[in-house]
Amino acid sequence: MNPEKPGYQLSCPVPYTDYDQVMLAHGGGGKISQQIIQKLFFTHFGNEYLNLAHDGAILPLNGSRVAFSTDSYVVQPIFFAGGNIGELAINGTVNDLACCGAKPLFISVGFILEEGLLIKDLEQIVQSMSIAAQNAGVKIVTGDTKVVEKGSCDKIFINTSGIGIIKEGIDISPINCRPGDVIIINGKIAEHGMAILSARKGLQFETGIKSDTAALNHMVEAILDNSREVHVLRDPTRGGLASSLNEIAQSSGVGLTIEEELIPVSEEVRGACELFGFDPLYVANEGKILVFAAKKEAEKILETMKMFDCGKEAALIGYVSEQHPGRVRLKTSIGSHRIVDMISGEQLPRIC
Amino acid sequence: MNPEKPGYQLSCPVPYTDYDQVMLAHGGGGKISQQIIQKLFFTHFGNEYLNLAHDGAILPLNGSRVAFSTDSYVVQPIFFAGGNIGELAINGTVNDLACCGAKPLFISVGFILEEGLLIKDLEQIVQSMSIAAQNAGVKIVTGDTKVVEKGSCDKIFINTSGIGIIKEGIDISPINCRPGDVIIINGKIAEHGMAILSARKGLQFETGIKSDTAALNHMVEAILDNSREVHVLRDPTRGGLASSLNEIAQSSGVGLTIEEELIPVSEEVRGACELFGFDPLYVANEGKILVFAAKKEAEKILETMKMFDCGKEAALIGYVSEQHPGRVRLKTSIGSHRIVDMISGEQLPRIC
Repeated sequence: MNPEKPGYQLSCPVPYTDYDQVMLAHGGGGKISQQIIQKLFFTHFGNEYLNLAHDGAILPLNGSRVAFSTDSYVVQPIFFAGGNIGELAINGTVNDLACCGAKPLFISVGFILEEGLLIKDLEQIVQSMSIAAQNAGVKIVTGDTKVVEKGSCDKIFINTSGIGIIKEGIDISPINCRPGDVIIINGKIAEHGMAILSARKGLQFETGIKSDTAALNHMVEAILDNSREVHVLRDPTRGGLASSLNEIAQSSGVGLTIEEELIPVSEEVRGACELFGFDPLYVANEGKILVFAAKKEAEKILETMKMFDCGKEAALIGYVSEQHPGRVRLKTSIGSHRIVDMISGEQLPRIC
Repeated sequence: MNPEKPGYQLSCPVPYTDYDQVMLAHGGGGKISQQIIQKLFFTHFGNEYLNLAHDGAILPLNGSRVAFSTDSYVVQPIFFAGGNIGELAINGTVNDLACCGAKPLFISVGFILEEGLLIKDLEQIVQSMSIAAQNAGVKIVTGDTKVVEKGSCDKIFINTSGIGIIKEGIDISPINCRPGDVIIINGKIAEHGMAILSARKGLQFETGIKSDTAALNHMVEAILDNSREVHVLRDPTRGGLASSLNEIAQSSGVGLTIEEELIPVSEEVRGACELFGFDPLYVANEGKILVFAAKKEAEKILETMKMFDCGKEAALIGYVSEQHPGRVRLKTSIGSHRIVDMISGEQLPRIC
């Protein structure tokens, strides 16, 4: 690992060695997650591609730039309002590639199945994956299936990895955000997380909240075709909007300010968050993307987003400055400012 | 799915719909595994890349040919004589790419961790992965970590996916095997499977058998540099030598004959197989490769293999003919012939 290389630098007060066992929080996408990534994975695996802490790696391959990304899905329950684990697995990796500025092309699928899983459930998941892949315009080209004894996994875990190609002239990276940029999101936040929580509580009909899972690559492609000064793309999944913004603030060494009144949240989600005691800023999304771009591009990006179903409620939610580098601040509806920290532990395990 | 396209065609007597639940045998690498792959995954995901049923997909990417492969590892126990789950995960994907005729370059790692896993065990696994990647000359460029509650997975599952590049002039495919080819293997069989079984029975010191896990890509690269008429490469992992040979016989529509006396098996493995009632032909390998090549290349390939530690005990074990297409026959040490069928169910679950 080259300390001179710009990249993600976390200032963690607690070294991971304080824990002698893996905790749920190590997978939560917050500070404790970042500790294990930094102190274990970066230390042993570190190289110029991994250390950028992008949604995927951007790799040179015979003169092309290729994006490569991986994600495992362990969401519980496997079926929920708005989608299932299979759809999520395809859309998630497609979106990670899109966040690298790539056109997603090829997807691999690795299944880990629990003995006793109903074949009809597996078939429904596989069908959803096929449809999701068609919608995103990607092909599932290679796969693997493992089966473990009953009790050794929870129904089904899916890994998807993906390859995409990056057009010339596109340079998206978590270190590229700069003062003067605006922060845009393509719609309402916290829907996926609250849909999962509603399903777990048996309240999905009461809350009526559906997961926002969607492939965003066609919208991203249109944005990049129309606007040359897009600097960072990030899908705020685990850890929600707050964690993604903190990652970018720290990677780029800039200060981010978001305005509470500008952040789209549905009434249903706001109500469910109050009921269950969650802050929507920390709740996972699966069909949202944050775009950091030069201010002069803002109108064009919003217009482009609104041409797509997944971008109808796009909004400019904040801006980037030199002040408070590495920090995210929220301007509240009463005009005061408060720090939005990265989540520490685990808000909602197995959200994706 | 294009029925005209040559590819893997399995004649299964039992449709997968006879099972309404996933069974361990669906992950065993044998006939029942192939049924779910054929009838569920190929039906819904099928396309020109997937249908070839290669160890990975061979994809066109901006004028280059790229190999892309994925595997999830659920081996139990996670530490065993000769290796651990992490080493296995790197070597396995490296070997799958090598079997596509590619030079492996980049690896992704997806961890699914059980709450309570010891950090020191995780660190040991991560260290082994780092060393294995260095030995194979690949970089771990992107990753993902999920944590599930205690009891929702068994300690640690690892997915690795990989990308490699295929040089011009190389054309390796499971459909390329032709009558007159020879079948060569780089050393003794059944060591990985018997090492795992010994570990499970607490007999690893008694049997002294170590897993053969190794990255074979440097040896494969040398073989392909020296010999132009290599047609098929296959690593006989789950389901062992017998299952891999059956897959190739069926994909290429040829008959394969192997000679019992020519197949390298150590005395220790032979003894352990007798003790536990296993046939070494069906026991998994993790550092072996089958090379199908024109007869005139045989000596050169054996010489090249023997230049590498992992190929010191390379042997020509059989030949390819037009007779008995789709079948594998074993010439026994007493001179008779018997059919070596693909394994039906599951011999040893969670072998990799």
